[in-house]
Amino acid sequence: MLPTEVIEQAQDEILDWQSSGMSVMEMSHRGQEFTSIATEAEQDLRDLLSIPDNYKVLFVQGGASSQFAMVPVNLMRGKSKASYINTGMWSKKAIAEAGRFLKVHIAGSTETDGFTSVPLASELDIAPDSAYVHYTPNETIGGVEFDYVPDTGDIPLVADMSSNILSRPIDVSKFGIIYAGAQKNIGPAGLTIVIVRDDLIGEPIAGQPAMFDYKTHAQAGSMYNTPPTYAWYLAGLVFKWLKARGGLQAMAKANQTKAEMLYAAIDGSDYYANPVTVRNRSWMNVPFTLADSDKDEFFLKEAKLNGLVTLKGHRSVGGMRASIYNAMPLAGVEALVEFMREFEKNV
Amino acid sequence: MLPTEVIEQAQDEILDWQSSGMSVMEMSHRGQEFTSIATEAEQDLRDLLSIPDNYKVLFVQGGASSQFAMVPVNLMRGKSKASYINTGMWSKKAIAEAGRFLKVHIAGSTETDGFTSVPLASELDIAPDSAYVHYTPNETIGGVEFDYVPDTGDIPLVADMSSNILSRPIDVSKFGIIYAGAQKNIGPAGLTIVIVRDDLIGEPIAGQPAMFDYKTHAQAGSMYNTPPTYAWYLAGLVFKWLKARGGLQAMAKANQTKAEMLYAAIDGSDYYANPVTVRNRSWMNVPFTLADSDKDEFFLKEAKLNGLVTLKGHRSVGGMRASIYNAMPLAGVEALVEFMREFEKNV
Repeated sequence: MLPTEVIEQAQDEILDWQSSGMSVMEMSHRGQEFTSIATEAEQDLRDLLSIPDNYKVLFVQGGASSQFAMVPVNLMRGKSKASYINTGMWSKKAIAEAGRFLKVHIAGSTETDGFTSVPLASELDIAPDSAYVHYTPNETIGGVEFDYVPDTGDIPLVADMSSNILSRPIDVSKFGIIYAGAQKNIGPAGLTIVIVRDDLIGEPIAGQPAMFDYKTHAQAGSMYNTPPTYAWYLAGLVFKWLKARGGLQAMAKANQTKAEMLYAAIDGSDYYANPVTVRNRSWMNVPFTLADSDKDEFFLKEAKLNGLVTLKGHRSVGGMRASIYNAMPLAGVEALVEFMREFEKNV
Repeated sequence: MLPTEVIEQAQDEILDWQSSGMSVMEMSHRGQEFTSIATEAEQDLRDLLSIPDNYKVLFVQGGASSQFAMVPVNLMRGKSKASYINTGMWSKKAIAEAGRFLKVHIAGSTETDGFTSVPLASELDIAPDSAYVHYTPNETIGGVEFDYVPDTGDIPLVADMSSNILSRPIDVSKFGIIYAGAQKNIGPAGLTIVIVRDDLIGEPIAGQPAMFDYKTHAQAGSMYNTPPTYAWYLAGLVFKWLKARGGLQAMAKANQTKAEMLYAAIDGSDYYANPVTVRNRSWMNVPFTLADSDKDEFFLKEAKLNGLVTLKGHRSVGGMRASIYNAMPLAGVEALVEFMREFEKNV
């Protein structure tokens, strides 16, 4: 979901960006018009997240699935092990890909409890010879979110923030690398943001593609090859939208309000249920089930008739899932809660 | 450049695609709406290029720069050598990246003549133990285009068609792999099309990212991870635009007419020059110089005032370059030719 205001602005300037006579889609990525768009987007993101100067921001392609490999390729540096925290399907994908390059040490897992919580900080078992520690702050499918940032000492901490970046303020200096596919809270699919500390750039393992070396992109200002220019532009519009609404403090407040409203509706009824431990309930993704799962299809159909779309749970888990990213207005959650009450009453 | 009709259609449906209540940018890539867009785009491309059934069409990210590595990663299969034809800057980039994985044998090069032609078919020296033969049918920067398809016998032929795909009919069955970044003749940047013969999928070298295995994408219908959905949708609109205009036979005729008009203007004047051997002059990219290169900046400035933009030659070669891709109407070339005449007369 993208903010309606952002799509409307894109619509207004799709044929002629700021009297340039060109669509952003048609601009040379090295021309002054696109360069100004790109530079401004990066600065706005730096402002929003208070990114320190010793971090590069990369605008690349390939999604989190590419970062699953780029992280070990760039951070191994003579080591052969990394620690991963396993909290759901996205953690598992990251772990599987890392296993192509190194030995994965599981520093904590909630698989036995069905991924309905995250390990406590005190339970983490980080291997001291780890090249890095990787975790997934928010698991999109399970709706499980970390309520703390793991303390990894001198070992670089790597976070896949695809589904909760920009949802609240974070302290970037605690991380070695933050990466995020754009398609949840940033912009359209096809763009990946990587925030990487300078000292972690430049020593990839041998025999890998140049495109998988962070230095390739860092040295070229993310223009080693043609970047996904239109997605970058749209991300920039979203960053400006966030700033205009008060930045991440304001988003955090709005997101908390939305999430609490939806969880209250679920908890306040015997008809709906969410399995996640309260302290780890996601502000972004709220999975829930009906007391009678035979009604799932009917619920989805009726919801769609009421303008409530993409509520189907992930094919791996079934049930329902409400994704209430930054762009989802409070009114959208209110409409869902109201629909859930009516459905329970009448079905 | 994209066809104006395509951008206008995108503008019309950017907030609400075909009464779905969603922007294409907001669709789940696994939902029925986007699935229909994706399937139709692939079928239209298959129709346009008459792609045989034993070829997969992949819609991926990462640009030609990623394909430079994916090709050796997937095609080496126990061999340690591949033959490359070197006809310009894009060939050189492909060669440099391949050198990370195997020994590159140069089967022909026109570097000594400044890349103003391509080797004759009879001059090619293909190593018999090559895993594949790679070439660049159209060199964007030099404006040099092959006037033949190399005959490589049983050795798979690989072509980087980023800058001339869909400009004329081709016989796909002559190729093992055809790849193309979308941003010239297909759609916006951030999408790469790979047309790959089935038997070349499935045996990548070890120790590489899953994303660099063609099988990863082929098995998942290009949805192993979230694809660049909006770029895919726009590519689909371009394919429909091409079909509506008569397909690639019609495009070839239009492109030849445009190119001949521009080369005639260059050749008919002592003030302008194009260095490329006539048989290898590109239909897509026409570089030219002024007799007095001190006037370059003034030419570009005046051209821009006349609505003729992005005429600056690549920073590596200077001068001018007119890119007259499919989306450039004949009227655009006529306007350029007229401007060139006036400039010569008055300056």
